[in-house]
Amino acid sequence: MDLQRTGYATAMQIGDLGEFNLIERLLQHVGEAGPGVTLGAGDDTAAIKPSTGMLLLATCDSQVEGHHFEQSQISPEQLGRRLAAVNLSDIAAMGGQPRWALVSLCLPPSTEIHFIEAVYRGLTAELNRFATRIVGGNITASELLMLDLTLLGEVPPSELLRRGGARPGDTILVSGHLGSSAAGRAALNAGLDSGAARVAIEAHLTPQPRVAVGRIVAASGFGTAMIDVSDGFAQDLGHICDASGTGAIVQATALPIAAGAQEVAIALGLDVLQLALSGGEDYELIVTAPADLTGELAGSVEREAGVVLTRVGTIVSRTEGRWLEQQDGRRVPLVARGWQHFGRAP
Amino acid sequence: MDLQRTGYATAMQIGDLGEFNLIERLLQHVGEAGPGVTLGAGDDTAAIKPSTGMLLLATCDSQVEGHHFEQSQISPEQLGRRLAAVNLSDIAAMGGQPRWALVSLCLPPSTEIHFIEAVYRGLTAELNRFATRIVGGNITASELLMLDLTLLGEVPPSELLRRGGARPGDTILVSGHLGSSAAGRAALNAGLDSGAARVAIEAHLTPQPRVAVGRIVAASGFGTAMIDVSDGFAQDLGHICDASGTGAIVQATALPIAAGAQEVAIALGLDVLQLALSGGEDYELIVTAPADLTGELAGSVEREAGVVLTRVGTIVSRTEGRWLEQQDGRRVPLVARGWQHFGRAP
Repeated sequence: MDLQRTGYATAMQIGDLGEFNLIERLLQHVGEAGPGVTLGAGDDTAAIKPSTGMLLLATCDSQVEGHHFEQSQISPEQLGRRLAAVNLSDIAAMGGQPRWALVSLCLPPSTEIHFIEAVYRGLTAELNRFATRIVGGNITASELLMLDLTLLGEVPPSELLRRGGARPGDTILVSGHLGSSAAGRAALNAGLDSGAARVAIEAHLTPQPRVAVGRIVAASGFGTAMIDVSDGFAQDLGHICDASGTGAIVQATALPIAAGAQEVAIALGLDVLQLALSGGEDYELIVTAPADLTGELAGSVEREAGVVLTRVGTIVSRTEGRWLEQQDGRRVPLVARGWQHFGRAP
Repeated sequence: MDLQRTGYATAMQIGDLGEFNLIERLLQHVGEAGPGVTLGAGDDTAAIKPSTGMLLLATCDSQVEGHHFEQSQISPEQLGRRLAAVNLSDIAAMGGQPRWALVSLCLPPSTEIHFIEAVYRGLTAELNRFATRIVGGNITASELLMLDLTLLGEVPPSELLRRGGARPGDTILVSGHLGSSAAGRAALNAGLDSGAARVAIEAHLTPQPRVAVGRIVAASGFGTAMIDVSDGFAQDLGHICDASGTGAIVQATALPIAAGAQEVAIALGLDVLQLALSGGEDYELIVTAPADLTGELAGSVEREAGVVLTRVGTIVSRTEGRWLEQQDGRRVPLVARGWQHFGRAP
């Protein structure tokens, strides 16, 4: 009898299994080592053969219970996908190709094995979509469930896109739609159940990292700066302005607000513009590019990745400031009300 | 008035400061980007230029409050040093040179700024000893204090030392001394205060990663397998045997047990041999090498790194098993009673 297929075994807690058996079990989800991997999970470190001439990109981001997610609101597969997506998005924002990942798990001993296996299924499924392999990691006991992913990627040095390259006159573009994730978070917390709410919740729980968009922008050579929308559009555009030493003017009516987010906002009595500007966790890309190249750039992205890049504003000089231009032409300060851990600075 | 120097400011909690101000503050400890770093902390990812022809090593390890440490037993500087050391030790075990680090911090909002700055001081001081730079990371709020470090290193492909290369007839060597860390842990928990206890506690709280020893063994070409002692000598040697498909015979009297560990064990009524075999967290290196080369190898390590490599046993065939040979010549099974998270497998 295959004990692993019985109800008894799948309800088993990791405290019953022990660390090494758990690692064995999880490694079955990881698959073959893959290209560039000299030594995958199972030794003291992974050993990787970086591609000649490429820059190595390295980032890490975590998902902490009670802070980024509640187990009652997200399935373990979704949690795994989300952990992958938020990191893939950071590699995308540099124009990079994700390659290899390390997983650090802090797990309460009472965690059920089928739960963490499901997290791994979601995690590896999302990473596999981008040809990215888990090459190592660490598991430790903890009172709180915490998942941390380190993601390594590669990019040709000439294609690296930073936050700091925007210049006055550049057009500001954003991929896809804004506001869905924040609307989904609000819908989840309010227990709202509708077609639009379900779409928004899906966008919140399993965001789609814009890896293909990032690569196309980087390879085109047209982009001058790029960042992903994790803290919130206004705040993340602010990071580009800070790093580039510029200001920005954004047209409120140009923002590609998701229709479903609008519907959820109305149902919950929220301001959808605020969700789009400050909600965060959209994991879309903000791109700046010279005005005369944006048509060709947006065309390439739409043709090759099937994603719309929308012109939403213009980079201006630092002294001109940061403004949101409303439909009636009046300007209000583009205030960064985005997400900050530990509250907001005074 | 420089508020940052007042008692008020240093007792401030990170919840008062906000995420971005905290990052700014911590980045002051990181220093210049350093060799190979195209883009350090402050963008979506770090960008690194790996050395041509080198393998990239990648590992991560965490320190979790209530599990790896208690704040009442370790200073924040020591905690930072320890976080660095346990990861440096993994790179050392592959024969690698540590290069770059990513730090993932999960912090309760009530964490005091001077506490986390002190952690960073210890962390960067220990990393700097090995010319290793922090290039990025992540900070998030959490109910529990958790620190995770991802460490990247490099090694020439021909010098990579795995667990799986030991062959029957090879001599088993171990660097430095065993048992101090476990004795220190026991002394801490028992509140034992003596000269020997203080030395053992120091060894436990701030282990010394054997990076120089690892590099010398790797560059010599004499080593056949290597691992660091994190789980415990018997268990970690077991990992070499598992990966190499071998057995091992260890001479109990040959084990380099720290004199201070002996003294602490006596004071606390513990078996020092068990501390040395199963205590773990010594962060020494176990090396296997052909018997006729061990003299030259040990000589090089002692001369160049000032560390003694002690012959403690012999790799044998798998069918011969794994044994601890006692002083009277009798053999008892070399049982892996090392540390496992989530208890022990049945």
